[in-house]
Amino acid sequence: MTTKQIVLSSRPNGKPVIENFQTNNFDLPEINDKEILLKAMFLSVDPYMRGRMNDAKSYVPPFELGKPINGGVIAKVVKSNSTNFKENDIVTGNLSWQQHCIAKETDLIKIDTSTPPASYYLGILGMPGLTAYFGLMHIGKPKAGETVVVSGAAGAVGIIVGQIAKLQGCRVVGIAGSDEKVKMLKEEFGFDEVINYKTSADIKKSIAEVCPKAVDIYFDNVGGEISDAVISNINFNARIVLCGQIALYNSTEIPMGPRLQPMLLTRSVLMQGFINNNYQSQFEEGLSHLTLWLKEGKLKYKETIVKGFDKLPAALLGLFEGVNIGKMIVEA
Amino acid sequence: MTTKQIVLSSRPNGKPVIENFQTNNFDLPEINDKEILLKAMFLSVDPYMRGRMNDAKSYVPPFELGKPINGGVIAKVVKSNSTNFKENDIVTGNLSWQQHCIAKETDLIKIDTSTPPASYYLGILGMPGLTAYFGLMHIGKPKAGETVVVSGAAGAVGIIVGQIAKLQGCRVVGIAGSDEKVKMLKEEFGFDEVINYKTSADIKKSIAEVCPKAVDIYFDNVGGEISDAVISNINFNARIVLCGQIALYNSTEIPMGPRLQPMLLTRSVLMQGFINNNYQSQFEEGLSHLTLWLKEGKLKYKETIVKGFDKLPAALLGLFEGVNIGKMIVEA
Repeated sequence: MTTKQIVLSSRPNGKPVIENFQTNNFDLPEINDKEILLKAMFLSVDPYMRGRMNDAKSYVPPFELGKPINGGVIAKVVKSNSTNFKENDIVTGNLSWQQHCIAKETDLIKIDTSTPPASYYLGILGMPGLTAYFGLMHIGKPKAGETVVVSGAAGAVGIIVGQIAKLQGCRVVGIAGSDEKVKMLKEEFGFDEVINYKTSADIKKSIAEVCPKAVDIYFDNVGGEISDAVISNINFNARIVLCGQIALYNSTEIPMGPRLQPMLLTRSVLMQGFINNNYQSQFEEGLSHLTLWLKEGKLKYKETIVKGFDKLPAALLGLFEGVNIGKMIVEA
Repeated sequence: MTTKQIVLSSRPNGKPVIENFQTNNFDLPEINDKEILLKAMFLSVDPYMRGRMNDAKSYVPPFELGKPINGGVIAKVVKSNSTNFKENDIVTGNLSWQQHCIAKETDLIKIDTSTPPASYYLGILGMPGLTAYFGLMHIGKPKAGETVVVSGAAGAVGIIVGQIAKLQGCRVVGIAGSDEKVKMLKEEFGFDEVINYKTSADIKKSIAEVCPKAVDIYFDNVGGEISDAVISNINFNARIVLCGQIALYNSTEIPMGPRLQPMLLTRSVLMQGFINNNYQSQFEEGLSHLTLWLKEGKLKYKETIVKGFDKLPAALLGLFEGVNIGKMIVEA
């Protein structure tokens, strides 16, 4: 059968552009033993994908030129030569950006879509949810009464971090990039305060005003000057959770900034970088908490769903403009 | 009786100068009940004192203008109105820079100078030794076979860190500022490699050459560009122990440098600032290890002892030029 795929046609220099991607039609062969033919339902676009567009060694290998992009996908089984999967099963896996694809049975996990919608497995019950959970709980280690600041607060991870911090009894301050996001985080998601960094005249001062007892945990999704402003308000014995640095991903030169070590030293601050996979052996613990909180209505969730397989590149680029609220997903 | 004291007469702007200090003669009153008259034997000069010369809130209060500097001192009891101390006892405490001083019994700890020399209690059996022990063992958590890099390697803390890391089975690379220090650290203190940062054409490359498996623990005593070079060679899951930032202490503007967060994030690196006092409840554990290793000959020790009470300011300033090898101490 003929299907479509989106490949990386050139590597970006700085901000990625639509021209870095190309959509191709191609023929899928017949499936072999233990293989499954899938039709994509939802495809995830995530900030970390920017790093994979560079030809640089990192914790995930770079995307290959001329080869399809790959990432988190929810798909439906069209045809199966595996006894573990049958037609119409809904599965998740790290799959190519293709309308149809062929996967091995070992690459797929069957998901239960009886209660949570299938797309949640790319967000709150997937990588972003687990990232929020482990970053906050295992690195941030929140204690009731502490002040938690989250940057990229309206993003896929930030929106969950803030709510989990509230469940731990913390005061939660978000940083986001529009008045709409500010209103939503406060009114719908229970954030105590939210700063619009685009309209604040002095972010450092804005943070100081809403964090009179300084910042005990900074969950950093963005990096750059916003982070400088938060860290200048950091408390003794604080924890800085390095989850994302989206403000810097498109830099073409090494970004410069104030040296943080003197402040981290004199205030006995911990800064820890992490990726989700570090906690792979504990995913079940994380998922059970997230599932329960979601079921109990203690966690709310938000997605920005873009319709149309062809919109994948534009959706990915949109992350760097902050167009999404909550998890950005493409519905094929 | 008349004695001498050294006071902070003005605050430095950038690098401290001799003129920031003044030596005064003054009259000591008679001692009251539970007070002890002491004669200073050894006085400690330490890099952290630079921070106290500024009028800035930190983890220790600033020195007051017109008041004597204070720090770690070993002293002999001249006269005692306390039943806990008698004439000729040797004590340690945080005391003023005075030839003679009056202390309360609660401010002093009696030390046993039967085996280790008294001055060791300002170094390997005092704050620098404990700093090395807790920073390396409790934050760095060395595992046999790992590569440990220590900056300021010939200083009071660095020289101990490197030896403890060797005792844990690590490969130890030091960074120091003279060929004399390099030779000593390799030949006398068992460092595997030592880089002279003053003669290396490219520190980053020098580190890469002697750390082919990258840097698992970076014990940072200096900060600045040397640290940039080490961190550019940092390994996945590495630990950066922030102990000192002597290269930046005399900065008059906020020092700028490459933003480290992207690398810390993608390599899951921990960076932790600390001060010795965080581990106060575990000092006994640390001291028992240091004492035993010293006794067994597994730890060697080095001091630079400057003679003459009046040399205190010059000795302190000398730290910022790296004139000391091992712990810098003034013998009164």
